Amino acid sequence: MLQKVGVFEPASKDELLGRIENLRQLMENAGIDYALIIQNVDCFYFSGTMQKGMLVIPLDQDPMIFVEKGAERAAMETPLELTPIKNDKEIKKILSDKHILKGMAGLEFDVIPVSVFERLKRVVGFDRCKDVSELIKETRIIKSSFELAQVRKSGEMLSRVFEKAHNVVQEGKTELEIEAALVAEGRRIGHQGFLRMRGLNQEMMVSTVQAGYTGTISTMVDGAITGTGVTPAMPQGSSLKKVERGVPVTIDYGGAYNGYITDETRSFVVGELQDVFRRPYETARSIIEDVMTYGRAGINCTEIFYRAYEIVKKEGLEEYFLGHGDGKVVFIGHGLGLEINELPVITARHSRILQEGMVFAFEPKFVLPPYGAIGIEVDFIVRADCLERVTVNSIDIVTL
Amino acid sequence: MLQKVGVFEPASKDELLGRIENLRQLMENAGIDYALIIQNVDCFYFSGTMQKGMLVIPLDQDPMIFVEKGAERAAMETPLELTPIKNDKEIKKILSDKHILKGMAGLEFDVIPVSVFERLKRVVGFDRCKDVSELIKETRIIKSSFELAQVRKSGEMLSRVFEKAHNVVQEGKTELEIEAALVAEGRRIGHQGFLRMRGLNQEMMVSTVQAGYTGTISTMVDGAITGTGVTPAMPQGSSLKKVERGVPVTIDYGGAYNGYITDETRSFVVGELQDVFRRPYETARSIIEDVMTYGRAGINCTEIFYRAYEIVKKEGLEEYFLGHGDGKVVFIGHGLGLEINELPVITARHSRILQEGMVFAFEPKFVLPPYGAIGIEVDFIVRADCLERVTVNSIDIVTL
Repeated sequence: MLQKVGVFEPASKDELLGRIENLRQLMENAGIDYALIIQNVDCFYFSGTMQKGMLVIPLDQDPMIFVEKGAERAAMETPLELTPIKNDKEIKKILSDKHILKGMAGLEFDVIPVSVFERLKRVVGFDRCKDVSELIKETRIIKSSFELAQVRKSGEMLSRVFEKAHNVVQEGKTELEIEAALVAEGRRIGHQGFLRMRGLNQEMMVSTVQAGYTGTISTMVDGAITGTGVTPAMPQGSSLKKVERGVPVTIDYGGAYNGYITDETRSFVVGELQDVFRRPYETARSIIEDVMTYGRAGINCTEIFYRAYEIVKKEGLEEYFLGHGDGKVVFIGHGLGLEINELPVITARHSRILQEGMVFAFEPKFVLPPYGAIGIEVDFIVRADCLERVTVNSIDIVTL
Repeated sequence: MLQKVGVFEPASKDELLGRIENLRQLMENAGIDYALIIQNVDCFYFSGTMQKGMLVIPLDQDPMIFVEKGAERAAMETPLELTPIKNDKEIKKILSDKHILKGMAGLEFDVIPVSVFERLKRVVGFDRCKDVSELIKETRIIKSSFELAQVRKSGEMLSRVFEKAHNVVQEGKTELEIEAALVAEGRRIGHQGFLRMRGLNQEMMVSTVQAGYTGTISTMVDGAITGTGVTPAMPQGSSLKKVERGVPVTIDYGGAYNGYITDETRSFVVGELQDVFRRPYETARSIIEDVMTYGRAGINCTEIFYRAYEIVKKEGLEEYFLGHGDGKVVFIGHGLGLEINELPVITARHSRILQEGMVFAFEPKFVLPPYGAIGIEVDFIVRADCLERVTVNSIDIVTL
């Protein structure tokens, strides 16, 4: 029944058991005997469903998916066995009978609030516990072929939206009008509705359109061009600023198909691009063209960052690269998957070798106060011998 | 500059200091000497800005707003004094010099992840701490006249969207098409972009449209009609189900103006409403008409719940009221403000006397598998002698 009304393309049983096995190997090395997983995205990743409950993955017994609410739907979503429960107090007896609770528990310390943790300790009754969230992130960093198929479909959605943008950006339109039309376009073709970003206070708009000085205001959001938004209660995103002739409009958009996020940016301009933006735009473009000549599995993320930085330095644009003033960010790329802030991070700060199946957004952007901002963002799937793009649109600035 | 592009209607200094004073009184009774607040919404509520940093509210010294990123913007947003810092390690020395750290700290245990808590303990260096989140929720439950003005403007936005819906709902259109058009309409007139829901795994669409059996599928979401969504990765919201003649379409929509959320539902039908939905619809309507005859400050929320339940029982519709099977919820209303799950909760489970300035959504809804769902939701501001509605639209089912 649900297949008729949406994108119910489930992961297979083998796929899910493979993910669980990958996590178990990391757990064993870390001395964790069982993982107690409650965050919705992590539950979905390992079980195929995020209905209310808890996923328990012991090292040497079958995983258990406890479901408190939405059990009927969960049964349609996962090929794995479910354990319906009335409330989470039943979990203690079941785990205790299986002698699981004596071992070291692994919990998602990066997302479980203190009061939920305290309650779990009481209700589930574990004694010893460690953080399992880094291990989960490491498991999720390599996408399976099933996941890459979802990423590519998410990229197709994004391609259609950027194509549509050619007819939407116009002189005198507000950033909000452009965003509204493009978000509606994505949603009509099956966009899941919003993007997920892991961690406290991490919020991300589906799309941010900026059309001038609104792109130069720095905010709490960890991005180079985050937009001004319409209120201090939501200090990011599009605003009532209108498109002006010669001033670039950047459209940052997150596709989201069956959970998988893609995230690209294109620049548009009505009439002739003002001089101040030309060299920054060409530099952004050179950085992307460069990474596509050598990027592949085996390359260190720090190398990618430094090589981009060298191109920027040669042009003398360091001051404006990846933000300006306290709005500068330290990364030029970030991993993508079920969340928009996955591993790897492309930065000078962390050494990390690219491996086949990683997916990341790459975003050379320039912020030029008080004029505006310009840049390009494209997503790559890491392959043995190259980087594969997920959209078909040109990275050229679109002149209208 | 920012005023030109959005809804930058800031709370005044007196307003913010009044909120802080209200919290201090509760802190004093609870034995908390200073609050360390880091969740974005709570920071915004007490300081007017949610740029990256931390808000410290001691019982007997001035509040301190530490800002790590977006300091320039924060200065435009808050009338209170800021303390720009390079990173949060500077906070320890400042608090220590003021002899603040010796006392009992209050932290938002309901939202701070375990790893953030552990880091704060190390970096800020407090010894003793308690949960301050219940006190913050109690402070936020009574809206000031400034806040009520924002709620009313949020209601105006909602009124415009429901008016627009008359021209959008049509036989053969998908739920997603209807939602996309209405979300775009709200955004163009300044909707902040998304709705906030407090706590782990709490996610809420701006709008959910359901047009038949998709409204009967129960999900993890704590609501009676939550929609099917388009993927198990986002198991809520609108889907590709099309509008059929005679089957009600419910449109649940969250207005959001300058932070403040409103949340109402209307039912629409193309042609003549099928018999099975008639009595449920009339019952929902009677419940709303009834509460408007007696609702006011001084009434207990449990009384409101029981009185509605009596009306449902008289019609023999208990099985379908507020959901069906494991999708049943235990509340008929919930508080509104900067988050969509604020206090008060209108339920049999918690006694709570309504006070002037509370704001809540009231939602008698029926789920009738396998046919569909129907219901009405309206928002009320509690006044001394009545309940004030926030939208101007009729609660009548709209026949198209």
